[in-house]
Amino acid sequence: SLAADIDVAALARDVQRAGTLAIPLVRRLTERVAAIDRGAAGHVHLGATSQDVADTAVALMLLEARRVIAVATHSLAGDLVRLAEAHRATPMLGRTLLQPGPPITFGLKVANWLLGLVETGERVERERLPALVLQFGGAVGTLAPLGDRGGEVARELGARLGLPVPAMPAHTRRGAIAGFAVAVGLHGLAAAKIATDIALLMQFEVGEAAEPGGAGRGGSSTMPHKQNPIASMIALGAAARLPGLIGTMAGALVQEHERAVGRWQVELPVMRDIFMLTAAALEAVGESIAGLVVVPGRMALNIDRLSGLIFAERVMLKLAPKMGRGAAHVHMEALVARAIGDGAHLRDVVRADTTAAGHLTVAEIDDCFDATSYLGSADAFVTSALERARGSVVFKAAV
Amino acid sequence: SLAADIDVAALARDVQRAGTLAIPLVRRLTERVAAIDRGAAGHVHLGATSQDVADTAVALMLLEARRVIAVATHSLAGDLVRLAEAHRATPMLGRTLLQPGPPITFGLKVANWLLGLVETGERVERERLPALVLQFGGAVGTLAPLGDRGGEVARELGARLGLPVPAMPAHTRRGAIAGFAVAVGLHGLAAAKIATDIALLMQFEVGEAAEPGGAGRGGSSTMPHKQNPIASMIALGAAARLPGLIGTMAGALVQEHERAVGRWQVELPVMRDIFMLTAAALEAVGESIAGLVVVPGRMALNIDRLSGLIFAERVMLKLAPKMGRGAAHVHMEALVARAIGDGAHLRDVVRADTTAAGHLTVAEIDDCFDATSYLGSADAFVTSALERARGSVVFKAAV
Amino acid sequence: SLAADIDVAALARDVQRAGTLAIPLVRRLTERVAAIDRGAAGHVHLGATSQDVADTAVALMLLEARRVIAVATHSLAGDLVRLAEAHRATPMLGRTLLQPGPPITFGLKVANWLLGLVETGERVERERLPALVLQFGGAVGTLAPLGDRGGEVARELGARLGLPVPAMPAHTRRGAIAGFAVAVGLHGLAAAKIATDIALLMQFEVGEAAEPGGAGRGGSSTMPHKQNPIASMIALGAAARLPGLIGTMAGALVQEHERAVGRWQVELPVMRDIFMLTAAALEAVGESIAGLVVVPGRMALNIDRLSGLIFAERVMLKLAPKMGRGAAHVHMEALVARAIGDGAHLRDVVRADTTAAGHLTVAEIDDCFDATSYLGSADAFVTSALERARGSVVFKAAV
Amino acid sequence: SLAADIDVAALARDVQRAGTLAIPLVRRLTERVAAIDRGAAGHVHLGATSQDVADTAVALMLLEARRVIAVATHSLAGDLVRLAEAHRATPMLGRTLLQPGPPITFGLKVANWLLGLVETGERVERERLPALVLQFGGAVGTLAPLGDRGGEVARELGARLGLPVPAMPAHTRRGAIAGFAVAVGLHGLAAAKIATDIALLMQFEVGEAAEPGGAGRGGSSTMPHKQNPIASMIALGAAARLPGLIGTMAGALVQEHERAVGRWQVELPVMRDIFMLTAAALEAVGESIAGLVVVPGRMALNIDRLSGLIFAERVMLKLAPKMGRGAAHVHMEALVARAIGDGAHLRDVVRADTTAAGHLTVAEIDDCFDATSYLGSADAFVTSALERARGSVVFKAAV
Repeated sequence: SLAADIDVAALARDVQRAGTLAIPLVRRLTERVAAIDRGAAGHVHLGATSQDVADTAVALMLLEARRVIAVATHSLAGDLVRLAEAHRATPMLGRTLLQPGPPITFGLKVANWLLGLVETGERVERERLPALVLQFGGAVGTLAPLGDRGGEVARELGARLGLPVPAMPAHTRRGAIAGFAVAVGLHGLAAAKIATDIALLMQFEVGEAAEPGGAGRGGSSTMPHKQNPIASMIALGAAARLPGLIGTMAGALVQEHERAVGRWQVELPVMRDIFMLTAAALEAVGESIAGLVVVPGRMALNIDRLSGLIFAERVMLKLAPKMGRGAAHVHMEALVARAIGDGAHLRDVVRADTTAAGHLTVAEIDDCFDATSYLGSADAFVTSALERARGSVVFKAAV
Repeated sequence: SLAADIDVAALARDVQRAGTLAIPLVRRLTERVAAIDRGAAGHVHLGATSQDVADTAVALMLLEARRVIAVATHSLAGDLVRLAEAHRATPMLGRTLLQPGPPITFGLKVANWLLGLVETGERVERERLPALVLQFGGAVGTLAPLGDRGGEVARELGARLGLPVPAMPAHTRRGAIAGFAVAVGLHGLAAAKIATDIALLMQFEVGEAAEPGGAGRGGSSTMPHKQNPIASMIALGAAARLPGLIGTMAGALVQEHERAVGRWQVELPVMRDIFMLTAAALEAVGESIAGLVVVPGRMALNIDRLSGLIFAERVMLKLAPKMGRGAAHVHMEALVARAIGDGAHLRDVVRADTTAAGHLTVAEIDDCFDATSYLGSADAFVTSALERARGSVVFKAAV
Repeated sequence: SLAADIDVAALARDVQRAGTLAIPLVRRLTERVAAIDRGAAGHVHLGATSQDVADTAVALMLLEARRVIAVATHSLAGDLVRLAEAHRATPMLGRTLLQPGPPITFGLKVANWLLGLVETGERVERERLPALVLQFGGAVGTLAPLGDRGGEVARELGARLGLPVPAMPAHTRRGAIAGFAVAVGLHGLAAAKIATDIALLMQFEVGEAAEPGGAGRGGSSTMPHKQNPIASMIALGAAARLPGLIGTMAGALVQEHERAVGRWQVELPVMRDIFMLTAAALEAVGESIAGLVVVPGRMALNIDRLSGLIFAERVMLKLAPKMGRGAAHVHMEALVARAIGDGAHLRDVVRADTTAAGHLTVAEIDDCFDATSYLGSADAFVTSALERARGSVVFKAAV
Repeated sequence: SLAADIDVAALARDVQRAGTLAIPLVRRLTERVAAIDRGAAGHVHLGATSQDVADTAVALMLLEARRVIAVATHSLAGDLVRLAEAHRATPMLGRTLLQPGPPITFGLKVANWLLGLVETGERVERERLPALVLQFGGAVGTLAPLGDRGGEVARELGARLGLPVPAMPAHTRRGAIAGFAVAVGLHGLAAAKIATDIALLMQFEVGEAAEPGGAGRGGSSTMPHKQNPIASMIALGAAARLPGLIGTMAGALVQEHERAVGRWQVELPVMRDIFMLTAAALEAVGESIAGLVVVPGRMALNIDRLSGLIFAERVMLKLAPKMGRGAAHVHMEALVARAIGDGAHLRDVVRADTTAAGHLTVAEIDDCFDATSYLGSADAFVTSALERARGSVVFKAAV
């Protein structure tokens, strides 16, 4: 290839002075072409400008980068589908504002993770189409040195590189490329949502799930209890940086005239960081999910430790038709206060209460405290979420 | 309406303590329903949670907000189409890194603005569909109090409100809503690109275009020359704030478990700012474009002030086939140096040069310095950009 | 006052057109002065420009805003001092990456919170001095209409308003005001660190501390176990928005020439948000700390639940001088594996181990598992942190 | 040195799995110590934790990084002092919102740049003191393995490394380090303000100043007029990225318990970017200022092109004492309209006006249109700004 064996260090020094990668690179390429065919050398870079070279090279690289992300997404989504199916019926505490609420299933939690990933992954696919195109406009976007044949050359160039040709060059029209980079960053943040939940579930005091362990991985030889959420750390680290990078990429839409002084030049390092952080987050969470340790027993135990209090509303709703809603409410408040005061399980307090026992059978009372019968539409939601996910572009065979 | 005449100040005080808008609001609604039908009051908010109320209300409000933005976009895009057509053949300097380059047309510059707006406007339309949906999941997303009829109630509710029902509730799956808000912010930044160019063209020393003036608008009674780019100021002010807001909205994807502690609560003020700033930017730029003063004479004069130097390459390309490219290049460098040294127009130097005159006729020489014949594909690009724009969803009749 | 009874709605309409608050405001003031003394009216706003009015008004408002923040900081810091003293000797798990480690004291954790608040609070005090100054430079910063008496008028004006006069006007030199706003934002984030820890400690499964409850505060009549971390939610919500606002404020340093088109105009809403979010975070965390429920028994229980494993290294360090470090390490790994395998407390395994028992007495073994004797410099650190805090400007009497 | 010849690639692979740099690095160091003294190896890293190693290493590196920035600042500030002195009396247009206003001097503009740099540079110096300290706290900040001698060891370690020892370890108290990084970023943005003005002044149509040219620097062999503002491009590129990085660094204050999962880990790459971008901006602007081409003739010409309109207010203020302010105002509006209508210089219109000529001599009229006598306090402001700068810590000999 004409680009082989270029002295990158020397190139970098020239770039420093020229303020652009293209000029010293094109000089080298021209020399190499001239060595083969002196006449052809006059046509190297003809009509093109530095930004044409750089933007088109970026589009070609992002085709590869997008593939890395699509593969990681596909793999992770597949594992999430399996995990959601496996735990459709595994009850655990729902938690809001970090406090326990009524039960959900672990399958429902996983289905939510999956759908989040699918939705942001679909946006990545939507946004890549307008973003990954040919840039070819010359000094000011008119392709003037090519006379009236600019469009023809552009179409030929696009065809050879496998890149669509936009309606006109996009030197300072950056909404498409920014939209793609932002979509990738949002996708990384969807992975970080999963990592957040795992890190929280993996707390020793919660203990409901854990990242896979292994030699040299998050452990400590002298603190044998210690199992750090390394994958979550990577994803959460990415999440801490992505918002700033996304904002910067968005700000780069505001470019002066036919080529910006400053804002165009920042896109490359910012996109590099967005893609690498997102890929790292997806792969780390992928590794975590692939080997996730789920502990249904601990999930059940944590429900039980709430002594039935999360089901108080359920008993009240059962008593309401018999006693009237107001009376049922007042009565349950008294029973709840008694349970807390005595350190007793609310079920036992309700069973022992003559009023409640006058309206409900022991089986009816016990059923109120059975998490598996208070899951509402959880299973139906898992079904529709999986269906939605399986039909998604992120699951298509050829990635 | 049941919500009429609510004492907002008293409500706000209750919200402060409760940490949520929904609880005190629902209490008031329940009282009002109870006054009409005591039995029905027991079904107010049944199965729902605070976030269901808030998110669904936001979706309904954003339907309206999106309409404001679509209307402003449609109007601005229409004016840009007319402006691009009108100035298809108006030459002006192309400018890169704030320095003059070969000529473009003002129509090409406007077509680029238009296409930028169309591309980001289409994203707004794409992203609103998954974002503006019903939220209805209850305390932890299972709709448990509704037993196995949660899905049915959700569909009925969605139908009444005109909102689609997602595969499962999205309490902590925020990619769709964030994607919509981010798309709106990017759209506002596309407007700010236009404002940047206008503010630069409107500089006294450039003078090629100006925002419309008018009583009390950007002027000064004692500085009669002063005409401030007020519309650009509004759009650029929006542009300075949008990146931070977009980043914040992106960061809000990372929410804990079934309801976040903090990040969900920030979406509302951040979205309010994104929508208002974008709407303000679109409307300000719209007003600016609708009355834009374009000065083709000054555009021509500014080209002329460069004394033909921007056409040096063109002469060289004409000489190359006759003298060889290397010799042509060396020769033109000498002529350029002479023109600069003498303060002469390069055309006159080339005409007076015997070598050049030996290869090119006076007409050929003069043509090299005619901006209108060095516009390459500018006109073709305007045509394809306008075609692309006119076929866009942002131009559909019913907005 | 001359500004009394101004019709704010009408003023706002005029501002919309003028693009600046100052022009329509000054017109009203001039009319009012003219009604009293026609001659004096000619001197209203003489030599000044809109930005002089706005920036000076902001400085005066921020004097008040800073006082609100200083009062909230002083109060919170005082409560943290008392809390740290009270829990100097209360052992609890240290936690890194959300996993348990060796013990600390709750006093040490609180001292760290305190010192964080003191350090960022001191920066607020440092930064307010250069930021809260008079702005008075006229149209372009020369005070030309005042001839050579500009400096004199500026000093008189500064003296009357109680604002220092900078070396020269600062219309587009925004480092001081940005530095102050950023310092305030960092202070709010220091409060959010406290909120994060409290929300985590308040998890039902951890249960070591809780925000104060109370009527209508974070609770639910039907979910009696539910106690939401409302104060933490407010502070964490602030924390989610402050980084974007801080970044925006920083970006506003880049202003064109003698007055910016856009970036100056964004400072006001951004500073308003930074100050209000920080004040809200400080007050919410202040309320939380003032009534914080600390549960030393649960802290001890959570240590105990780790079955002594966090002390394995300590036993190893005791055995090393007797057995050699390598042998001690290998031996402890075996004992740890046995403890985990048997579900036994590591202390019991060590006691029952003949090798360990040959080197260590029962008392020595038991001491290894006593958290209170493995706190290293915790108490000394609390002492020096409290000393450092008490000597800080945030504790000076007059705030 | 013990760290010499470490296989960085192999180290990096181990780091990937361990999730921390410290563990594989310490293992290597321990092996090397053991090869010298087996007993000493037991004390390598004793009592310390990974974050102690990383944070202390960062502090030592930032000492160097701060020196690079201080040197660049000192050099740039010195050149700005000289430039301000040289152009104390060089009139040019003041420009607000990119529109011309009354005159300033180029010296005043430079003094404002200088003071901006001095103010942010002083903050860098203020903030480095609390930030560049020893980190030494062990696993959870108690230094427990060192018994009651933790403080003693810390002081000895700090003394050997030349780093102060804070009141207590700062594992999750990040306000000091964030404050330093943010201060550095704000300093880079102050440099970008200078770059913005230069890029604007360097526009062909303005032409009042230019970055130095030179071989391979921002030029084009075939577009001889083209001189790109390369230094400004670098500084403005930095400015586009710094706000997002500053926001991210601020967000990293919110760290969980005794060591964060994610946010601590992001500090290093973010600080690297902030320091490198700021250093690059300072050095680029330094190179630009050191060789800045200033064109006083063009500055005068640009003033003249406004045909005296910027001095209309000045004539009115002269007429006011003679005619009454209201009448003077009305009269000048008429003269201004005539000047614009006739394309005449306002001075000539005033001279030819019998009313004005009845009140003012020709010399008085001409003086109204002399920029050099309408500079107000510009010279005095330059003097006080230079005095303020020269007394600043950024000018102290030993950097």
